[in-house]
Amino acid sequence: MSKVITFGEIMLRLAPFNYYRFVQANRFEATYGGGEANVAVSLATLGVDVGYVTKLPNNEIGQSAVNSLRQYGVNTSSIVRGGNRVGIYFLEKGASQRPSKVVYDRAGSAIATALKEEFNWNVIFEGVEWFHFTGITPALGDNVADICLEACKIAKEKNITISCDLNYRKNLWSKKKACEVMSKLMPYVDVCIANEEDAADVFGIKAQGSDIITGKVNHEGYKEVAKKLADKFELKKVAITLRGSISASDNNWAGILYTDNEFFLSKNYLIHIVDRVGGGDSFGAGLIYSFINGFAPEDAIEFAVAASCLKQTIEGDFNFVTVDEVKKLASGDGSGRVQR
Amino acid sequence: MSKVITFGEIMLRLAPFNYYRFVQANRFEATYGGGEANVAVSLATLGVDVGYVTKLPNNEIGQSAVNSLRQYGVNTSSIVRGGNRVGIYFLEKGASQRPSKVVYDRAGSAIATALKEEFNWNVIFEGVEWFHFTGITPALGDNVADICLEACKIAKEKNITISCDLNYRKNLWSKKKACEVMSKLMPYVDVCIANEEDAADVFGIKAQGSDIITGKVNHEGYKEVAKKLADKFELKKVAITLRGSISASDNNWAGILYTDNEFFLSKNYLIHIVDRVGGGDSFGAGLIYSFINGFAPEDAIEFAVAASCLKQTIEGDFNFVTVDEVKKLASGDGSGRVQR
Amino acid sequence: MSKVITFGEIMLRLAPFNYYRFVQANRFEATYGGGEANVAVSLATLGVDVGYVTKLPNNEIGQSAVNSLRQYGVNTSSIVRGGNRVGIYFLEKGASQRPSKVVYDRAGSAIATALKEEFNWNVIFEGVEWFHFTGITPALGDNVADICLEACKIAKEKNITISCDLNYRKNLWSKKKACEVMSKLMPYVDVCIANEEDAADVFGIKAQGSDIITGKVNHEGYKEVAKKLADKFELKKVAITLRGSISASDNNWAGILYTDNEFFLSKNYLIHIVDRVGGGDSFGAGLIYSFINGFAPEDAIEFAVAASCLKQTIEGDFNFVTVDEVKKLASGDGSGRVQR
Amino acid sequence: MSKVITFGEIMLRLAPFNYYRFVQANRFEATYGGGEANVAVSLATLGVDVGYVTKLPNNEIGQSAVNSLRQYGVNTSSIVRGGNRVGIYFLEKGASQRPSKVVYDRAGSAIATALKEEFNWNVIFEGVEWFHFTGITPALGDNVADICLEACKIAKEKNITISCDLNYRKNLWSKKKACEVMSKLMPYVDVCIANEEDAADVFGIKAQGSDIITGKVNHEGYKEVAKKLADKFELKKVAITLRGSISASDNNWAGILYTDNEFFLSKNYLIHIVDRVGGGDSFGAGLIYSFINGFAPEDAIEFAVAASCLKQTIEGDFNFVTVDEVKKLASGDGSGRVQR
Amino acid sequence: MSKVITFGEIMLRLAPFNYYRFVQANRFEATYGGGEANVAVSLATLGVDVGYVTKLPNNEIGQSAVNSLRQYGVNTSSIVRGGNRVGIYFLEKGASQRPSKVVYDRAGSAIATALKEEFNWNVIFEGVEWFHFTGITPALGDNVADICLEACKIAKEKNITISCDLNYRKNLWSKKKACEVMSKLMPYVDVCIANEEDAADVFGIKAQGSDIITGKVNHEGYKEVAKKLADKFELKKVAITLRGSISASDNNWAGILYTDNEFFLSKNYLIHIVDRVGGGDSFGAGLIYSFINGFAPEDAIEFAVAASCLKQTIEGDFNFVTVDEVKKLASGDGSGRVQR
Amino acid sequence: MSKVITFGEIMLRLAPFNYYRFVQANRFEATYGGGEANVAVSLATLGVDVGYVTKLPNNEIGQSAVNSLRQYGVNTSSIVRGGNRVGIYFLEKGASQRPSKVVYDRAGSAIATALKEEFNWNVIFEGVEWFHFTGITPALGDNVADICLEACKIAKEKNITISCDLNYRKNLWSKKKACEVMSKLMPYVDVCIANEEDAADVFGIKAQGSDIITGKVNHEGYKEVAKKLADKFELKKVAITLRGSISASDNNWAGILYTDNEFFLSKNYLIHIVDRVGGGDSFGAGLIYSFINGFAPEDAIEFAVAASCLKQTIEGDFNFVTVDEVKKLASGDGSGRVQR
Repeated sequence: MSKVITFGEIMLRLAPFNYYRFVQANRFEATYGGGEANVAVSLATLGVDVGYVTKLPNNEIGQSAVNSLRQYGVNTSSIVRGGNRVGIYFLEKGASQRPSKVVYDRAGSAIATALKEEFNWNVIFEGVEWFHFTGITPALGDNVADICLEACKIAKEKNITISCDLNYRKNLWSKKKACEVMSKLMPYVDVCIANEEDAADVFGIKAQGSDIITGKVNHEGYKEVAKKLADKFELKKVAITLRGSISASDNNWAGILYTDNEFFLSKNYLIHIVDRVGGGDSFGAGLIYSFINGFAPEDAIEFAVAASCLKQTIEGDFNFVTVDEVKKLASGDGSGRVQR
Repeated sequence: MSKVITFGEIMLRLAPFNYYRFVQANRFEATYGGGEANVAVSLATLGVDVGYVTKLPNNEIGQSAVNSLRQYGVNTSSIVRGGNRVGIYFLEKGASQRPSKVVYDRAGSAIATALKEEFNWNVIFEGVEWFHFTGITPALGDNVADICLEACKIAKEKNITISCDLNYRKNLWSKKKACEVMSKLMPYVDVCIANEEDAADVFGIKAQGSDIITGKVNHEGYKEVAKKLADKFELKKVAITLRGSISASDNNWAGILYTDNEFFLSKNYLIHIVDRVGGGDSFGAGLIYSFINGFAPEDAIEFAVAASCLKQTIEGDFNFVTVDEVKKLASGDGSGRVQR
Repeated sequence: MSKVITFGEIMLRLAPFNYYRFVQANRFEATYGGGEANVAVSLATLGVDVGYVTKLPNNEIGQSAVNSLRQYGVNTSSIVRGGNRVGIYFLEKGASQRPSKVVYDRAGSAIATALKEEFNWNVIFEGVEWFHFTGITPALGDNVADICLEACKIAKEKNITISCDLNYRKNLWSKKKACEVMSKLMPYVDVCIANEEDAADVFGIKAQGSDIITGKVNHEGYKEVAKKLADKFELKKVAITLRGSISASDNNWAGILYTDNEFFLSKNYLIHIVDRVGGGDSFGAGLIYSFINGFAPEDAIEFAVAASCLKQTIEGDFNFVTVDEVKKLASGDGSGRVQR
Repeated sequence: MSKVITFGEIMLRLAPFNYYRFVQANRFEATYGGGEANVAVSLATLGVDVGYVTKLPNNEIGQSAVNSLRQYGVNTSSIVRGGNRVGIYFLEKGASQRPSKVVYDRAGSAIATALKEEFNWNVIFEGVEWFHFTGITPALGDNVADICLEACKIAKEKNITISCDLNYRKNLWSKKKACEVMSKLMPYVDVCIANEEDAADVFGIKAQGSDIITGKVNHEGYKEVAKKLADKFELKKVAITLRGSISASDNNWAGILYTDNEFFLSKNYLIHIVDRVGGGDSFGAGLIYSFINGFAPEDAIEFAVAASCLKQTIEGDFNFVTVDEVKKLASGDGSGRVQR
Repeated sequence: MSKVITFGEIMLRLAPFNYYRFVQANRFEATYGGGEANVAVSLATLGVDVGYVTKLPNNEIGQSAVNSLRQYGVNTSSIVRGGNRVGIYFLEKGASQRPSKVVYDRAGSAIATALKEEFNWNVIFEGVEWFHFTGITPALGDNVADICLEACKIAKEKNITISCDLNYRKNLWSKKKACEVMSKLMPYVDVCIANEEDAADVFGIKAQGSDIITGKVNHEGYKEVAKKLADKFELKKVAITLRGSISASDNNWAGILYTDNEFFLSKNYLIHIVDRVGGGDSFGAGLIYSFINGFAPEDAIEFAVAASCLKQTIEGDFNFVTVDEVKKLASGDGSGRVQR
Repeated sequence: MSKVITFGEIMLRLAPFNYYRFVQANRFEATYGGGEANVAVSLATLGVDVGYVTKLPNNEIGQSAVNSLRQYGVNTSSIVRGGNRVGIYFLEKGASQRPSKVVYDRAGSAIATALKEEFNWNVIFEGVEWFHFTGITPALGDNVADICLEACKIAKEKNITISCDLNYRKNLWSKKKACEVMSKLMPYVDVCIANEEDAADVFGIKAQGSDIITGKVNHEGYKEVAKKLADKFELKKVAITLRGSISASDNNWAGILYTDNEFFLSKNYLIHIVDRVGGGDSFGAGLIYSFINGFAPEDAIEFAVAASCLKQTIEGDFNFVTVDEVKKLASGDGSGRVQR
């Protein structure tokens, strides 16, 4: 009986070592990750009782994906086993002016070909308080969008809070299709999370005065985005991450939270990037943690931004930071002095 | 203008280090391999001008597969680029009583979804003397079987010698389907290669007195298999590898060649296995090398068996042995004394 | 609520790569292991619901030990957290005439300094059917021997079957002390497991006609050892592993089971060793699996010996083999042919 | 029949991992590189048909050097095989205030001991449009300088454009000797490339207002250097890279192109260095690519500087960047945002 | 007969690769280090004849620690062999806002349990000019504090200069205890070294206007600290390192030397950190080198700060820099340009 | 003041990992080794005070070679520093029928170009009892042969025992030249060591009934070889290693000692090879150890053969075995049971 359930696709992540490009790679570091799985592991590491739902094949690669979640304390008992393959993504880490590069090889994965009847949400949601998914999940196919919708409906019936990270992926669907499908799901959502591009991509809601390419992110402009999103779908809370990408090695990082007609802008962190993948997911996990622990909005946004700042200093998709570590940074100690 | 052309699927091979099992793996050694690609690299290393034909996606993983062939001197100029993914196989190396394990993830690969019109065999075969494929290629799908058939027809018209390694893969098709499709291709084949199980799997031609499980391989029984195969399809030559698997670490290895109504049985090698994948492919390459260089049958089978014995002492799918190295072993020096 | 509980010390295992000696090591492979933890992971991999009890410090090394168990599905919810350090053992893998070498650095570990009141066995044993420990656990100190004794008493009250692997460690206690302490625990034990040296070391019960040093192990002589052990402590079952060490690279491996006045001797396996640590533990796990699944004695001993044969072909302390893999070997297929 | 030919020495590069110093190294990453080989691989990756000429020994190390070029699509058919050894350079990567360090071990290499008659430039230059070499090649010895001179003469006869990167190496020859030899070669050169120190080292042409040690590079001062170089040797084009070395980890990087009496100064990039070796070579390749594709001078210098900026974010000597990647950066997108 | 002797504890250092956190680690880089050992290796690399004194167990781990010192030229002939274990510290490298983390596992080490009679200082100090220890050594236990005190007394008798780095470790003792013990040792000390926190921690002497957390270090305030320290214990020289921790990746680094009533403040270096452990130790070594070579105070502090700046660009505890490298940086060349 | 001095060339050894062939290598394990250096490290590990003499360049690679010796306790104070390069050898480990392969790149090394006046043997030999060199040293060039001869003369004057391992290397000199040069040195030699081929290669003294290629080594035939060698040069002792190479993975290994007109044949070991390089050197070290410790001839040959058997189970050139380990094996315990 977990407090939080997340639902989505966990992939095998294959990354060349250090800063080698794909064409130089003769070995890959093999980890597992994916939006909702990353949220689950973050929450588990923060001490939350969390379960993860997906479908994974009955072979050793599927088992290794399950193991990667169990290792960090995520409840995997509701994972459906079957299907043909684990989705894969290849990641080449960028540096300086050279961007990180992702090659997806996820078509035909077990979860992308799953059937609605394989998931018994009434059982899965027993005793659950919070349900989280991202825009990637319904993008996997109409079947998965249907499963998502059913999950949302049953969650709503059970009075479970629902959060959704828009997470637009252009390789999975068009903006038009995304808008169409997400518009059916958003009415069930209580807390919406987005990055500085998602709202524009999915719903055409754009911030003024920002230029993603040059790394200029106008924090003020996103207040309007948050408000518009909240108004459009009657959301309780909207949180947006604000990444100012100076280069692949250095990013500015902040977040904004809109709730009860008020805006809360976090501190900004200049991050020397180790691995930026999963930054948004760890932000989502930080928010969920804050909300289920009754943090004030100004504390919640600081906690979520600090947690996700730290994630980007860690290799892999998962965020291995404790509550103490996040609080220490959120309270202002980013000096990085050795902890003995 | 290559002398030999091979056609098939090259996959990304992901193998845990040393003897780690899949569930322990946190990094994979990434190489590329596949039956016909292995033959091509073997031939190139033996000094033959050889080209490889397949279809590979236009991304970095596809490019890396191309590069892996170019690196060893295979002509890749006839490779079609496009499609969605590179097929993958995961390999866990066995030891002692624990068998090696292969998990295939090859569905939907670029070559498996290729179209007949993408391959202009009249151009590809310009100046070519020998065409080689294996039973894996037509097993990838009816479309690929059709491409194969067309290649065979045009090769025949151009008087190109055709060799085929039966290479039955139960994950790709049933025995019944294999028999049906291969029976259409075999009439074009001049030289048929098989392992100790293929003829039974595909055409129901069984050897007497062998028990694969216990590692007992009755060399005599395979003479009949070879003859039956040759008679059935009017083959010029039939060659069969005879693996006596004592354990995953130790194998007996020999080969038989049937041609012009005569049998030629090679020496037997007791191999301490480093990596047995690609053993049969390197045998095929050794045979093709021998035949295009006009070796006597008894020399051809010794060369092919020695070459493929050495392959199994090398990591990866590819056989990196020179003509001198093979001849030294074939002529009886298997003492493994340091070469300074 | 697990079916099986094991109790002992899990250590950080630091091993140089491949066959490097300690003095050459500049990096260590870091895994976790220990007799009872190894049994737990083996059982979990065989599909048994199993929990592991120990005490581990509240730092990241302790957490990593917990994670290593969770990863493979062991229930870790009864692990007590606290204390100062995780015990360590350094392992240098032997080869040929050079033996493997273990350097222990386990003094002062959290479990070795644990207190009886930290373990609530009445709660831990809820719903449990089988309790397993080894002779290493009471050897950690009088405090831990006391905890062990209490666990045995409560287990007995709850009608839980108790198994004990004698596992004598000369670095932890003298033979005299071992005999004294173990003699208090054995009356609670139902199933006793030992290797070819333990019974002699702990209780002075020696086999005739064996010479450990030359690798000559007289299987017949161990029947008497088993019977004497069973008679002395009114044991239901006694199982002994019989390792014939030809060299660090090649071992004979078999087992004997004595139950209801009958002896059952398994097949013998000649193992090309990958990592022999944990061989006995995986034998114990195989036995426990067999008994809780009601195997006939002759099947139980074959299953346990086959499972533990496979363990020794896998890196690390843990045995990652499935029931199917064990049954395939137990039923006679040790040919190590590739599984595709 | 390649469009571009480069000629020089390719060495085995041995580099400790990460930021380990030589005295800590117990393994080396083994790649291959050298000024003109780096240009060839850069060009091949940009899609240009390029061949590389050198001499390499007939052993496995020589073969591996050949393979490293073939892998990335460089035509190696004109490489002469023979001689005794592959030159080696050891590279220790610097960080922050600690400079990178190169230890050369190249004396006696196959190319350094090659004979003029081993290279048939009339055949090599068939169908070629552009010939490139650097000041390192003639510095290898008088014999190699002679080969270089002959190549230049024949190239000139065939109306092939000749580019030369001055690339002064103080370990190979004195400034005096460099000036003397290079002065004989420069009359054949059409396009001269240099870094911020070369013109002063080789021809005594110095820039005003720069201080290499403090990282202050006066871009204006280099206009005069370029003009003086062009005037002295009647060069069509002179291009100079301007590295402002803040530290081993952070460099400013820009370039200037002088052609037809006009100066074109590129944007400046602040690079977080991954591996700065080969920066100048990738700049040369970018220029050659631009010129054979008829880029306007302002586009050519931006392309070359962007290409070589990206090189310095990649491990090894070679620059693995595509035309699209370079154009994206040259057009202003250096934000390093993930490419999915 | 060494010129300098240092005395303390050398530990096995286990660090995950790159920026992996402990919970992700499945292998550790194994090196050795510890305050006084680091000083010894630094001095040996600078060409000083130096010996190191400690106690290490008679097993392979102890031997490897000895070897790590011998490898770099430290005289290890006075190391006492015996005891049970080598102390261990686990190091997780921080990045950006995430601090480095040290988990100590050093209790019960050979040196921490050593006896006074095991060290014959009269013999050890034969021909010695300088004796160095740090505040860590007496913190290991009262027995070690006693050994330290004895060493100081005998050194003083022999007119050996004594330096002490305060090096406060809160895990080893309380501030109160530290003050008490160190106050007994300081009267023997000639040269006192400290970081920006030690004087406050041990003797309650605080600098004005600094805030360690925000990385703001007021260089002026430390003049007073140095003077107070010198006055309190009649020290000849006091040197303080001034680390301004901007983040785990970027630190400011400078030092101050107080001697003969004068202050000497070094240049400040902005360091891009590779490994900051051992920074203070290499500063101490730089000072000792400077003083035994009769450097002027302004040169001594510049040399020590430059040496320790370079240390932080090198992996591991030890500082592998030569006198030439340090002098080059101290004289102003921090451009990090490649040294060929 | 060492007891034993060895003199020769230490090279950088570059070996691909595991069983990768050279053409697959993208990293090399970097260790150092060479006949006489291997003897020195073996002796140091056995506890003998030993010094090593050579010439090594003043760069970091030379320093690393020195460090590799110091690390294991060899006195390096008589090593001359200067010259241009460290000799290199590339090693590809063989397996089964595939032989190990060595590519030498040692021409022009510091020692090969050293001058007689650089070595002051009168000083070097102060207090020395035993001098050892191998046939490789004089093969490096006439200058080195001269240095060798001078060393022998001065050693003889000082009554130092001289041992020489014939160690014929066909890449360095012809058999004729070897015979000529060695014949001048042998009169100074007291103890001659050879492998099963050396005596025939250098002096044309052949064993009857052996066939190196098939691995058949007639132990009896070597008695005559030993006697002939002893008689020809009035040697006190002749020892010959007898390697029966079954394959690169499995070798028989024994030795014969001839002294005072008696023959002593050791036990034979069937070795599962980890790394056979340095086998002969560790045999020589074992002999020297035995003789300086006054072992009886039958014990000496058993000790030397056991030591060198163990060497071949260890990675790298050096033999890291203690006297206890050797004695344990020599006394009959080759069971390879774990040492805890």
